[in-house]
Amino acid sequence: MQHSFSMRVYIEDTDVSGLVYHPNYLSFFSRARSEWLREYGFSLQELQKNQLIFPVCQVELAYKRPLFLDDEIVIYSELIESKKCSMVFLQKIYRKTEPHALICEAKIKVACVDEHLKPKCIPAEILKICKE
Amino acid sequence: MQHSFSMRVYIEDTDVSGLVYHPNYLSFFSRARSEWLREYGFSLQELQKNQLIFPVCQVELAYKRPLFLDDEIVIYSELIESKKCSMVFLQKIYRKTEPHALICEAKIKVACVDEHLKPKCIPAEILKICKE
Amino acid sequence: MQHSFSMRVYIEDTDVSGLVYHPNYLSFFSRARSEWLREYGFSLQELQKNQLIFPVCQVELAYKRPLFLDDEIVIYSELIESKKCSMVFLQKIYRKTEPHALICEAKIKVACVDEHLKPKCIPAEILKICKE
Amino acid sequence: MQHSFSMRVYIEDTDVSGLVYHPNYLSFFSRARSEWLREYGFSLQELQKNQLIFPVCQVELAYKRPLFLDDEIVIYSELIESKKCSMVFLQKIYRKTEPHALICEAKIKVACVDEHLKPKCIPAEILKICKE
Repeated sequence: MQHSFSMRVYIEDTDVSGLVYHPNYLSFFSRARSEWLREYGFSLQELQKNQLIFPVCQVELAYKRPLFLDDEIVIYSELIESKKCSMVFLQKIYRKTEPHALICEAKIKVACVDEHLKPKCIPAEILKICKE
Repeated sequence: MQHSFSMRVYIEDTDVSGLVYHPNYLSFFSRARSEWLREYGFSLQELQKNQLIFPVCQVELAYKRPLFLDDEIVIYSELIESKKCSMVFLQKIYRKTEPHALICEAKIKVACVDEHLKPKCIPAEILKICKE
Repeated sequence: MQHSFSMRVYIEDTDVSGLVYHPNYLSFFSRARSEWLREYGFSLQELQKNQLIFPVCQVELAYKRPLFLDDEIVIYSELIESKKCSMVFLQKIYRKTEPHALICEAKIKVACVDEHLKPKCIPAEILKICKE
Repeated sequence: MQHSFSMRVYIEDTDVSGLVYHPNYLSFFSRARSEWLREYGFSLQELQKNQLIFPVCQVELAYKRPLFLDDEIVIYSELIESKKCSMVFLQKIYRKTEPHALICEAKIKVACVDEHLKPKCIPAEILKICKE
């Protein structure tokens, strides 16, 4: 299944070059994954209270076109690989007004660990959602 | 007139204490002011192309209650004072689920300058909006 | 006693206007307070392990002159008021090359709370340092 | 040549999980590249005034071990590939107290463009430094 999430670029996301500062794309992708879980009734805060943390452990990012202040973007996310204790997401950013011009593409591997950072099985309900 | 803007707290906004990191509230207030202008047809990017920058020059902030991951908040903004080259906004954050418990209150003074940072008159159309 | 801390402005601190984004000054002040404690042997991580959190609860900020990419700044911090469960710091930013031109001045009130956010007495050793 | 840059992890870099928030590593790597240029007399601000921007266009990141509040880290950077309009850096983070335990490794491709984002040749002096 593919999830989509819309958001706006604000001043805080830009830098002196006039573009969106490149590390912020990773925050945008992180918001999109959070919203995906939320739509299915999972809150990150509750997961963490149950000692489930999902640290990012690997990233591949290709910045294709620039993003600017005020841009409205859509982030598409899909699960492309899953193991017992990790998932790989493919996530893409498009400007809302140009739905065919890829802005940024990312492959993001997320682990599942407990509060002592020991690997933990991803809860079946979460995997089910992402795979649907 | 009072403007309202809703947003979500994400992982990027939190810190190791489990709360929202205090400087981020200023970014939230800044987003709310941007959306206010946008609703009336002004884009920050275009204003800047016309050499209009609105730097914050004074801030009073009172943090009353904590904010946490996943919280959905509403920010109310109103103009409480305006001069030729500056405006003062009163902005308040509430959690969406607790509309009577003030989270944070701010008085934020914004100047209007050109690209060389020289004071400039605030365009009449912008003042009109904020005063309405 | 007055504490001084030097740091550099990086791309991440700037925004599309070409200036340092105003919320980031609060992070700079926070770094300076952390380094002050560290110089006296306190680590924030250990304090937090002992259920001591120091949330900022009130801020007054006056931005006097702009900061730019690459600027090297000095932050002077001093304790100007202390109660059982709170401290007020006066903090000032100067550019290293212009030691008489005040960039930004802040009065920052910090509370002391436990992990349930209940007020807690500030440890005597910490107050002693700040007052010296 | 390999360049090394030391820095400290502050509260602003952490998130609610207690770890450093993963996008911030990209800011750390960016600081290290800035300091490398600075040591050889280049300021990013002056480069930008001469219409030279260095946007990151590709990233590969492997997060091997977590980083925590107060950690002091060293970032090693080296140029591993250069073309007319782009450079690839290999950058590694180690905790200062554990010089053999790799925290994070990144391959970061940086383009060189003018203020209209058109590809531009990397100045010979800059390439020379990085290759030395």
